This record gives sequence, C-alpha cells and structure tokens, in this order.
Amino acid sequence: MLQAAKEIETILGSGAVSFDEDVIEAHGHSDWSTSNSSGRPVAIVYPNNTQDVSEIAKVCYKHSVPMVPFGAGSSVEGNFSSPYSGICIDFTFMDEVVAFHPEDMDVVVQPGVNWVDLNNRIQSSGLFLPMDPSPTATIGGMVSTNCSGTNAFRYGTMKDWVINVTVVLPDSRIIKTRQRPRKSSAGYNLTSLFVGAEGTLGMITEITWIQLAALELMDDVQMGVLNKHGSAAVRRWQFPENPTLFLKFSGTKEGVHGDIASVKSVIEPFSPSKVLFAANKQEEIDLWSGRKEALWTMTSIKPQGFNIWSTDVAVPISKLAGLIDISKQESDELGVFASIVGHVGDGNFHQAVMYDAKNEEHVQAVEGCVHKMMDRAVELGGTVSGEHGIGIGKKECLLNELGVDTIDLMRALKSSVDPKWIMNPGKVFDVPKAVKTVTSK
Amino acid sequence: MLQAAKEIETILGSGAVSFDEDVIEAHGHSDWSTSNSSGRPVAIVYPNNTQDVSEIAKVCYKHSVPMVPFGAGSSVEGNFSSPYSGICIDFTFMDEVVAFHPEDMDVVVQPGVNWVDLNNRIQSSGLFLPMDPSPTATIGGMVSTNCSGTNAFRYGTMKDWVINVTVVLPDSRIIKTRQRPRKSSAGYNLTSLFVGAEGTLGMITEITWIQLAALELMDDVQMGVLNKHGSAAVRRWQFPENPTLFLKFSGTKEGVHGDIASVKSVIEPFSPSKVLFAANKQEEIDLWSGRKEALWTMTSIKPQGFNIWSTDVAVPISKLAGLIDISKQESDELGVFASIVGHVGDGNFHQAVMYDAKNEEHVQAVEGCVHKMMDRAVELGGTVSGEHGIGIGKKECLLNELGVDTIDLMRALKSSVDPKWIMNPGKVFDVPKAVKTVTSK
Repeated sequence: MLQAAKEIETILGSGAVSFDEDVIEAHGHSDWSTSNSSGRPVAIVYPNNTQDVSEIAKVCYKHSVPMVPFGAGSSVEGNFSSPYSGICIDFTFMDEVVAFHPEDMDVVVQPGVNWVDLNNRIQSSGLFLPMDPSPTATIGGMVSTNCSGTNAFRYGTMKDWVINVTVVLPDSRIIKTRQRPRKSSAGYNLTSLFVGAEGTLGMITEITWIQLAALELMDDVQMGVLNKHGSAAVRRWQFPENPTLFLKFSGTKEGVHGDIASVKSVIEPFSPSKVLFAANKQEEIDLWSGRKEALWTMTSIKPQGFNIWSTDVAVPISKLAGLIDISKQESDELGVFASIVGHVGDGNFHQAVMYDAKNEEHVQAVEGCVHKMMDRAVELGGTVSGEHGIGIGKKECLLNELGVDTIDLMRALKSSVDPKWIMNPGKVFDVPKAVKTVTSK
Repeated sequence: MLQAAKEIETILGSGAVSFDEDVIEAHGHSDWSTSNSSGRPVAIVYPNNTQDVSEIAKVCYKHSVPMVPFGAGSSVEGNFSSPYSGICIDFTFMDEVVAFHPEDMDVVVQPGVNWVDLNNRIQSSGLFLPMDPSPTATIGGMVSTNCSGTNAFRYGTMKDWVINVTVVLPDSRIIKTRQRPRKSSAGYNLTSLFVGAEGTLGMITEITWIQLAALELMDDVQMGVLNKHGSAAVRRWQFPENPTLFLKFSGTKEGVHGDIASVKSVIEPFSPSKVLFAANKQEEIDLWSGRKEALWTMTSIKPQGFNIWSTDVAVPISKLAGLIDISKQESDELGVFASIVGHVGDGNFHQAVMYDAKNEEHVQAVEGCVHKMMDRAVELGGTVSGEHGIGIGKKECLLNELGVDTIDLMRALKSSVDPKWIMNPGKVFDVPKAVKTVTSK
C-alpha cells in the first residue's frame, strides 16, 4: 500500500499526497458517526481533476489497494472509514463549477463543491439546489449517499436531480453515464446505479444536475431546546413546546396563499396552539432557522464525554406517527436524552440519542433501541436508511430489509464493476471471504 | 425450444401455452414499429402470477432458451420482437391491482394492468398516475421503457414514480428491489436498474408506485390535421394552424389562476393568435383532446400501403427549438408528410414521417433523415431516445451517444444478471459472439 502511495506521489507530485498522522486520523475517524472502524488509510491523496483520479485508480488497481473516497467527512454511517486500510482520496481540491447553463437549468460541478457555496453562486439566476443536508456537505458525498434533507417532500431526493455523473471505475476507466437531456430511455440507468452507491462502484468526478420549498416535524424536546439554546432570531418566537410541523411553500403569490388556506383548514382543528406564518422574507428566514438549528443546539447541550447516536429510518406515511410514538417511548424508558426530527412529508425521521460512550450498559441500551426501531421500520414496509446510507453500521439491517437474493444481486453487480473489491471495501456489504485482494492484507 | 415450451405446458396447463401461428405472428411483428425482426417465438406463454413466471424461467434457463416479455405490444423500437426466437411471455392475465393504499398514496399492481383502467379504478381517491403514453399500454411495458408522455414536465418520468419492483431473474430467482418507503438510501438503486431495462435483465411481475397536469408542442401540420380530422369536440375549436403549445396546470384554484397570469404575460408577446384557456371542466377535456388525438388523426389520413416512422429524441432545453426547426426542414425536403409533436417542457419531441415501405428510395431517405436527427441530438448533448427505449432499432445510436466504455459497463451488468444472455436477447446491445447459448441456434 505504501508503495502504491509513493507511486502516486511520483505521478501527481509530493503536494498531492499526505502521510501526516493527524491528517490520516482526521480522515479515518468521525465524532459524528457511531460506525467507526479501527483501520486507517496509509495516505491521503488529493486529486485536482478526473485524470488525476484515473491515475490513482490505475496504481491502486495494479496493486489491489483499497480506495476510499472522502468528501466533507460529515456522513454518519462510517461511509468513509477504512476497515481494510488503503488509500483515501480527498476531493477537497476538485471544487470547480465546470459549467453553468442557466438556459437549460443545469450545472456541471466537481465533487468537492460545497452545496451552500454553489447556491450562493447561482442565486442571481433564481435557481437553487433543493437538497439541504449538513451545510458542510460537499456534492460528491451528497450524491454517493443519495442525500435529501428538509426539501425532499416537495422536490424529491438527490437521485431525482442528477442528470449524469462522470465516474472513474476501479480499473481506472473513465465513463460518463449519459449526456445532458432532462430525460432519457436510452440504455440502463447507470446514473441511478452510482447515486447512493456510497463510493463502492467507482469514484464520481463530475456531476451534472438540475436545479430549480418542505414538511418538517420537530418533537416537544427539540422545541424546548430551540427556545432555550437557539439563536436570538429563533428564541424570539418562544415556540409552544409541542411536537411541531414546519412547512415551506413555493409558487406564485396566489398559489402560496391558496396553499396556506388549505393547510390551515386541515391543521387548525388538531393544533393545541396558534398556527404561525411568516409575514415577510425576514420572518421566513428566522422561522426556518428553528429547523436548521436543530442539530447544533443539540450538540451545544451535549454533556462532556457524551456522544450523539444519530440514525434515520423511513416508512410508508400511514405508519409514521405510530413508529415515532413507540420509538420516543422506548428512548424515554432508557432515561437518556433523545429527540426526533423528521422529514415527515416523505415518511422519514431522525432520532438523536445522547449517551455516555464509556458506559457499556449505556451503549448496549442505545444500540438495542436503535436496532428495534430499524426492525420495526422494516416490519412496517419501510427502510433502515432514509437518507444516510448503509456504510459499515447498517449492513446486517440491510440484509434483514431486502433478503439474501436481492443482496446477492447487488453483490453480483458490485463484482462485475469492481472484481477486486477495492472500491470502498467493507461498506454496504461485507467483502466475500474468497476475495483475497483485500481480506488477506 | 419446443421442448421447453412443452415442459412449461406440462407445468402450467395447456391453456397457458399457445402454438397458434396467428397468435405467434401477432406477438412477433408490429405495424407500429419500424424495427421488426424476422425471428418468431416458438410459443406464447400466459402466466397468472409471479410463481408461474418463475417456473417459466426455470425451464428456459435449464434449456438456455430466450425469454421475451410482452405487454400490450404498443412499443415502437422492436422491444418485444424475437430475433433469437425463444418463448414469448405475455402478461395479459397478470392484470390485478394487488393492493391499493390511498393512505400511503401508493398502489401495487401486476404488469398486465392497463394504466387508463387503473386511473378509472382509483379516481374516487383523487389520486392518479401522471404518466400518459398510448391508452392501450400496460404497466409492465411502461416500466420497462421508462415511459413518460405529456405530463412529464410537471411530474417526471416513470423512474420517478416506481417505489419497487418484483422481478423474476433469468435463473428463476424472485427478488423485490425494496419495500414501500417513499425514499431510501439503503443499498444500490436496483429499482432504477430494472426500470427502462427493456426486459433484458429479468421479468417484472409486480410494481409499486406512487401517484398523485403538462407543456406540449404540436406543429402547424399537426394542428391542420386536428382541425380537419379530429373528433367533433376538437374540431369545434378550429385552432390557428401555427406551431401550438398546450399547457395544463394543477394546484389550488388560486395557484392555477396565478400560473395562468404568469404564463400569459410570457407567451402573448410571441403569439400570433389569441391564447385559448378552458373555462370549465368540459372545455378542459375537449381542449386537451386535441393533444390526445394527435396519433390517431395521423393514422387516419395515412395512405393505403404507407407506414409511419415514429421516433423521438431529447436534448437540453436551450437546443430544442433549433433542432426542431432543422429536423422539420429536412423532412420537408424529403417531400414526405411529417409532423412533430413534442413534450417540449423536458426537451423531448417526436417526429412522425409517413413513407411507402415498398419504395426502397423512400425508406432510405426517411432512415437517413431520422439518423441525422439522432446524430444531431447527440452532438447537442442529448439522447437518441427520450421515452421509447433502444430496442433493436437504436443500438448503434446508443453506442454513438454513450461511447464504448459506458456500453461495456452496461454489458458487464447485463452479464452479471443474465450470464446466458437469454433475457430478451438482441435488445439494447448485440449478444456477444462468445455467448453460444443464444447465437448458435
């Protein structure tokens, strides 16, 4: 592996490869994730373009060295950890907007572009990217986990917005999944195969997507946290501390007023408190900040030495309320601090549980609770991962959800694209024992 | 092959298999398609359920006999023809609505369900399927060609609506791509792999989809045909014979009025004639009938012995107007009757050219004209098939569009799922010469 890293250094230059221990540690472990592994990459490589990535793959393929793509490091299922060591490819410097075609409403970007930056850059066109995960996230990781966020109910998830991807395959070949038409029936949908593949089939080096408001739930616990620990703009609302729905509308002024009237008539009979509406742009920003500040307000009250176990599931909409109720009840019985934040419009919710990682009983209790939630989601016809992916933390759950034949088909596809199993090995599925290229090291 | 058919007859009963020559001919050739092959299946098999399909696959796999799935027979690229003979599986009797969950806004159906019937059955729920291809189409074929139609600009294409599919793999295993959550990041997107695969990876036996108005262009020629040959409801409008945009709005009353005002202000400065709006539900139906009658009015004026060459491409939106102009000019120069109907909101349009199939010069001229349109679409960053698929008619064009490495990846996926190449062989890609199971017969 070290030899491969040195060869890459010779080809790309010494500035492109880091052997620094702190840098390696920062790429090998995440405080946000409960699915870390003890493995670390031998080096971090920084490509500048697709051709660099292809050169890296050529060397790694020759030596059968695992390749682990790295974006912003904000994923939560161990998606970028290195259980089989290998070389970590960091896309930080591939952060160019390659082409913006406002006349076609599409934009071509490199994977290291931050989505908030991109939205700022294209704002004057009136276009925006509807996916809104963690503000630190970069586009390569967002595509690789099929991310979504608060806007998905209205706008769908990443898979609905990607027109094509350029991918460096494990053996260094560069392919583009399709051109720029808005729709196509031409051949297999390779774009959808790579979106959400968590970097296990190849490295995405260029993305073309289309761009163009949300139904969010926060529970009583989270509303209380916001009232006490939110920013001044959020605290001034002093929300009633009930489970609260956040809704965002889009369209013409007449359309939005019509939608508000319809929603009010549906919600008010069930609401113990007044329905709040933003009267102007500033109030819109401030009100929605409540939802946006959910994660950091939770983090800010986390006791020293405690971790946050963050997980998500998605179920058919009619099953959602029941599952949230029972999941909240169970985490309350644990006596730990837990809150639920949900993209409930599409049946998806997140539970965040605080626990003492040094207390084994604590860890086991939280783990049991989280797994029970996933088992129930599967029983209700749902999925163990609505938007975070499988990584190394949910592999068994995926088998439970989809069954052995479906997983075998996915494995067959993986093997056909990556016969040496060197692309982000150990994620989504276990590496088969027969594959010696990775497991023997 | 005959032995395989006889074995299937023994397992499923004699009523399930037809050797009738007329039946075989009806499943082997399409007057709608310009991509027919001389091959014919040896028998037509009619399964009743997923288990039957699996039994059929088991026999065919054992004998390495090609399997060709058949829906309504309305596809236009030779998608259901049998260039390697084999057994044709007709899904006519798999026409059940398995489950309807209005509370989750999803419905589970068998592939033989007709989409118009389904919309009628679920109408009282206020839900509908936004895809609207030929009214004869059944859902299995619609999924397998990633169909769309006039509503795609507002609602997207088939791939955006399918939640999961149950598939019988070539070796008879039954898999389900996922459960019923509205979104998922769990594992590879197998659903999208089978949607649009034209039956080359397996047979879809159950589909779950979500359900929930369009921007259409018809050219001057088509408007003239409607005024003369449309139904009474359409003829009463006597449309100006200019290229005409058809728009459909959806939402609250206030929203629709807002949208109409916006659209009027954009369109009127460019329109040589008055913008027509439907004042009530009946007018809405009548006006939209104009678009719906495009195909049959064309068919009704086709001279005896002439065929219609129907093809479609899709390009980035900014390239659409230019491509339509030049394509119309070229077909006019041919001196043949040609019209253009376009789902222009998503950059997709269809050209229908009438020609005398017995006149070799005629055929070559039309073929040249169609291929030039596809080459131009590719040059402009578009695709050779916006919604009809590749079938046997556009294989070379697909290679031109995507390049050899991307096609090789698709082939590798195909081989991993269907190592004997017996699922709908000869569609999308040529069967590799090394595959003796099919080519040696």
